[in-house]
Order: sequence, then structure tokens, then C-alpha cells
Amino acid sequence: MLSEFSLIDRFFARRARGARPADDGSLGIGDDCALLAPRPGEMLAISTDMLVEGRHFFADVDPHALGHKALAVNLSDLAAMGARPQAFTLAFALPQAHEDWLAAFSDGLFALAERYDCELIGGDTTAGPLNLCITVFGSVPPGQALRRDAAQAGDDIWISGTLGDARAGLGVLRGEWSADATDAATFRRALERPEPRVALGLALRGVARAALDLSDGLAGDLLHILERSHLQAQVAVDAVPRSAALRRLPAEVQRRCTLAGGDDYELCFTAPASARAAVEAAGRSVAVPVTRIGTISDLQSAADNPAIRWLDAAGSPLTLTLQGFDHFHAD
Amino acid sequence: MLSEFSLIDRFFARRARGARPADDGSLGIGDDCALLAPRPGEMLAISTDMLVEGRHFFADVDPHALGHKALAVNLSDLAAMGARPQAFTLAFALPQAHEDWLAAFSDGLFALAERYDCELIGGDTTAGPLNLCITVFGSVPPGQALRRDAAQAGDDIWISGTLGDARAGLGVLRGEWSADATDAATFRRALERPEPRVALGLALRGVARAALDLSDGLAGDLLHILERSHLQAQVAVDAVPRSAALRRLPAEVQRRCTLAGGDDYELCFTAPASARAAVEAAGRSVAVPVTRIGTISDLQSAADNPAIRWLDAAGSPLTLTLQGFDHFHAD
Repeated sequence: MLSEFSLIDRFFARRARGARPADDGSLGIGDDCALLAPRPGEMLAISTDMLVEGRHFFADVDPHALGHKALAVNLSDLAAMGARPQAFTLAFALPQAHEDWLAAFSDGLFALAERYDCELIGGDTTAGPLNLCITVFGSVPPGQALRRDAAQAGDDIWISGTLGDARAGLGVLRGEWSADATDAATFRRALERPEPRVALGLALRGVARAALDLSDGLAGDLLHILERSHLQAQVAVDAVPRSAALRRLPAEVQRRCTLAGGDDYELCFTAPASARAAVEAAGRSVAVPVTRIGTISDLQSAADNPAIRWLDAAGSPLTLTLQGFDHFHAD
Repeated sequence: MLSEFSLIDRFFARRARGARPADDGSLGIGDDCALLAPRPGEMLAISTDMLVEGRHFFADVDPHALGHKALAVNLSDLAAMGARPQAFTLAFALPQAHEDWLAAFSDGLFALAERYDCELIGGDTTAGPLNLCITVFGSVPPGQALRRDAAQAGDDIWISGTLGDARAGLGVLRGEWSADATDAATFRRALERPEPRVALGLALRGVARAALDLSDGLAGDLLHILERSHLQAQVAVDAVPRSAALRRLPAEVQRRCTLAGGDDYELCFTAPASARAAVEAAGRSVAVPVTRIGTISDLQSAADNPAIRWLDAAGSPLTLTLQGFDHFHAD
């Protein structure tokens, strides 16, 4: 096994920060621990995600895409906090070490890491059923972190990009619906190569109030903001942005994919109505479309529960059944 | 699955630091990221370890012991750096969520975490083959970190505690050798409940030069210090400390368990000869025995490779065959 695992050194350790101290005292792979500090006056934002074969990706997934996505979903958590990526650790279990697979996986991983100047500083490898665990570190001034509990009544609710394409792609792969080759490629790209909204998260510091990234679907994720902020929301279902490709699927599929699709990795955030121009300017500054889909309001009474009221195009309440619409990872 | 996984909230999130900001701005579970900073003027020491069923522990392991060990092996990395434990994240995959198992596992985990004031600040749970990935954070002044590349010619080599009991315990479980019930219990405790040498690591700041923790066996691990420091070592084989229980096994088994056993989680460190009294005082101050087992010296020539020369009681060179003596995790 050792000779196989020396491949890992070749594909990972050589592209990682080594254990030579930098000017700031930081230290990478090769010692018992890495040493890292946030920027002066800032804090480290830390998130960890575990990806398991069959649950978060298919066994035959393109390993380059898997390397990209494993880091992308973690960078998305930094984006949702308004944190600047700094470093990550990678622990993984592999049934066996295939050179081609590791070469492609590490290429996908480091291509994204290098784009965000995010260095591999530590890791662990072992034999076992395929499992990827990344912990990512960013830096953020604590007062500017975009927290889930910071929404206020009267805030607008915003979405970056479009929702639903990743779930549409999963449906095509599963045979739940079909699409022409061009649309299917659009969906599959959304599923396999999500783009973390890091630049938007940074641009929203001091502009947005609450934020999170959409990994489990808008309906479930927005509820996290409402629960932590003790508020409710009204969302205009037809205002939720979707791609031209998704618009070619049946209306009911569109609705379920956008509201309960999962794997979107777009940001959902709130901002005061007075900040509309600033939010739009932030989106333009990083070339990411931002769309206003609803508003935050107070609970009606102390006994009221945080919830989302869905509205149709005429502003009338809709009753949606989104339960049981599983996405790739339902836990 | 969701109802099962709500058990996880009950056993973990409730004992974790929540996402209410502390006075220092730190933030725990419940947002996209945790927020953490090292102590003023210090850096975060970070280490990650992945434990896989069948490779690092048996499927029928006592879950309380597993919770202890999963965190202990990570705290041991902090100890080896001279870092003070601060926080950890836990990501794990479980085939199914059994309440009794999770209760015992989380009890073992938090009993150790609370002893070291080390808070759970983030995590991820998913369905999948049993896999535990912990990333641990400590705080250390960068100039006082005990690094692997800091050994110098003339340094003494020291070991904390005793070596070999964990490997002896694995051998008993595997039927490689036998021991009476009392000794078998001693061995098994060493295997399942290693005690991270955190207090010793802190006491050695400013006293020791290089350090690491022994996870793969003395022969392999000491070589890491030698390689990173470009030095060689002489070790008196019979000076390597071992328990009374281990002394009752055959001499050849003792030697292999102490030198290539793995899973010891004792510290191996170097310090100048002038610091002998200070090292012994550090050990006494935390009630951990420390034993001098050899010395560090320069390579004979530029072409020479870092290596360990093993010496017998008379000081004569020994040729040891330690290859192929596998311990619990050989990767």
C-alpha cells in the first residue's frame, strides 16, 4: 500500500504549502500541525464538508469535476460568510490509488484552489471506501461576517445567479425527465462544477445583512435564516431566477427544481430596502446577477413559527408540496 | 433518514458551542462557518485525521472508546506542536444512526474534549460507510512551536511514557501472542484510550527543540525529524521505555512493539544536553515520565542519508529488521 500511497505525495504534497515558515510564521504540510493566522484584526471562518460516493456523487463521476466540486462546496460556505479564502486541509479515504484518477482529481482541486489563492496546508490519506473531507479556512472581520441570524423585518430577500439547474441535471442522469443535448450539458455543468460565489460574498460585506449558501434547496435553506433570526418570509415563486434551459422543462419541474432542488451553491441573502442600489452595484462589480425574490417580516405572534409564505404572480398564497422531492444528499 | 439524523443534533449540537458570538467574536455550530481566532500574538495549529472502520478500529469497538480515541489522536498532534487545544470540527459518515451507539460515542468524545476545554465548533454528518474526520485547532506562539525541523546535532532524544503497549494489545486481539487478563487489559487500554500528552507539550515550550507524536512507531516517526532536520540519530534499543506488562512478553516482541508498534501517541522530542534538568522538571510538573533514549548527530557526509543507528546495551550496532511489522494503520 505504501508504494501506491506515495502517489498521493506526488499529486498533493508537491502542490501544497510546505513546512517552511512564511514571513508571517505560517506553516504547511510536513509537520504535526499546520500553523495559520487570520489577517490582522480578522477571524478565521472555518467550515468542513464530507462527500461520500453514492450520496454526493456517482462512482463514475469525472474525477476532475469531483476535485473541483469537493473544494467548491467548501469555498461556497466561506462566500456565504463574506470570508476571503486562505487555506484548506484535505483528508480522504480511497479504495485504491489509481494514478490517472488521482492526477485528474488533484488537477480539478488545485485549478480551483489556485484561482482563489487557497493553499493546501494539511491532510490525511487512508485506504477505505471513497470519502473526501475538506476543511476550509477564510479570513473575515468579525463585524462584517454575513451571519444567518442577522436578518431584519423589512429586508429584501435576494438570490445570486439562477436556481434549479443542478437538480435538473440530476433528474436527467436519473431519467426523471429529459432535455436536449445542449440543455443537458448546461444542467450537468451546474451539478458537477458549481462556482462558489466568493467574490460576491466579499462585495456584500457591509451591504447585506444575513446570508447563506443554497446547498439543500431554497425552501429548506431560507428557513435556516428565518429560524435563527426569528422572522418569516414572503417569496414570489415566479420571481425565483432560472436559466433559459430550465424554462424549457415542465412548469412543475421548474418550480420544484428552483425551490427544493439543492446543490445550487448560490447565495441567498437579505439586505435593507435602502440598499437595493448597493446590492445591484455589488452584483455588477463581480459580474454575478442578483435577483430580489421576496421580503422578510416579523412573526405575527409569539406563538408563530418561522415559515415561508409562497406567493404566485398575482400575489396570492400558494400551497406547495415540496416534501419528498429528494436531491442528491438529503441529510 | 432525517428523523434518524436528528439524533445527531441531540448528541452533538447541544454540547457544541452555538452560533451566539462570544466576547471575542468567535462563533460555533449553526452558521455557514464557525469563527475562530488564536490567542493574541499566537497562531492556530491545525491538524486533521481520518479514521476508517477496519483500518483504524474494529467494527465492534466500544463506541465510547472510539469517541475518545478519535479526538485523542488529533489532540496528540497539538501536543507535539506545543499548542493549547481550543476547538475542533467533526465530520462523519454513518451507515445508520443507532441511538445507543451515538450516545456512547459522543460521551467518549465530549469527556475528553471537556477535559481539555476544546469546543466542537462545526461539523457535517452524512450516511455512508463509517468514517470519522476530525480537524483540531490549538493556539501556539509561532516562535515556541515544537517543529520537526528544529533538531540540532548534540541534542538528546527523549520519549514520554512507555512505548509498545498499544501494538501489544493489537497482537493479543489478533492472536499473535497472548497475555494474562491483567496485562491484556493494560494493553487494550493503551490501544483504545491513548492519553494525548497535551500538558507535556505545553511544558516543553522553550525547553525542547524538535518534537512529534508517535503514531506509526518510533523507527518511522523519528526518521521524520531526522529527514526534516538533515541529521542522524543513535538510539539505545534497551533504553526505550516499556511497561511492566510488556516486559512479560518475549524479548523480540518487546523490541518490535516498542520500535515499530505504532498507535503510541507518546511524544518523541529532542533537547540540548544542557536542558536535561529542565526536561525532567517539565515531565515532573505534569506527572509524565520522560526517558532519554539516544542522541542526534550530524550526517557523516553530504551523501549520507538521515538514518537511525540502533545500539545494544554494550553500545554495539544492531541490525534490526522492522519492515513488514504492520501496525493498525500502515498508510
